[in-house]
Amino acid sequence: MAQIILQEIGVLHGDIRDAKDAPKNYSISDRRGTLEIKQEFADALDGIVVGATIVVLCWLHRADRSVLKVHPRGDKTRKICGVFNTRSPARPNPIAISEFVVLGIDGTKIEVSGVDFFDGTPIVDIKKKIGDD
Amino acid sequence: MAQIILQEIGVLHGDIRDAKDAPKNYSISDRRGTLEIKQEFADALDGIVVGATIVVLCWLHRADRSVLKVHPRGDKTRKICGVFNTRSPARPNPIAISEFVVLGIDGTKIEVSGVDFFDGTPIVDIKKKIGDD
Repeated sequence: MAQIILQEIGVLHGDIRDAKDAPKNYSISDRRGTLEIKQEFADALDGIVVGATIVVLCWLHRADRSVLKVHPRGDKTRKICGVFNTRSPARPNPIAISEFVVLGIDGTKIEVSGVDFFDGTPIVDIKKKIGDD
Repeated sequence: MAQIILQEIGVLHGDIRDAKDAPKNYSISDRRGTLEIKQEFADALDGIVVGATIVVLCWLHRADRSVLKVHPRGDKTRKICGVFNTRSPARPNPIAISEFVVLGIDGTKIEVSGVDFFDGTPIVDIKKKIGDD
């Protein structure tokens, strides 16, 4: 098929700046951050409320896309396996899936908790959780 | 940031060909299909086993990327809201997240159940479930 080109819908502002400071995933993170969504997508946010859990897809722009095998969770005592059998950020298309709790909304800025990726990471999609929709 | 370009890692073969035939999502689907992954990504599949649940991201190539508001679940009795507050396929970056159970593996062909998207849909990522990793 034709090339698949993603639009950046916004960016994450947070305080995680390097790997040693990043939680392994959202389910064990209490870090806060702000999703700043571009004004052109403001209408797409309609209905998101404080207290909701949102599914956020971001583009891990610092990930290595050439890696096909890794140690799970970066733990060298574990047997190396394919990246599709892990949650490693390294993978051909480094799209991360996180679930954040909405703490506040100010126009197109959404304050969240559960942040597990770097400050400046591009956001590419937001969804409702299955069952909440 | 620079343009985000996804690589198609494979394609889904299944028997769903139009919207009226498609389950609303994977959690209520028992449809089977086959993920045919490109040979160049074979190493990335290492460790995936029959019986596992895998998280599959696909690119909904037939979705309308210009839509910002919809009726949730296509139900016109429900109030229209932003696509980021739904699981609608229509959205700026139509990446779907599904969870499939692996029924069989033959080289880079993975037979799965839980299929909720069209035959011919490009696959862009596979991950382990959080907690299983």
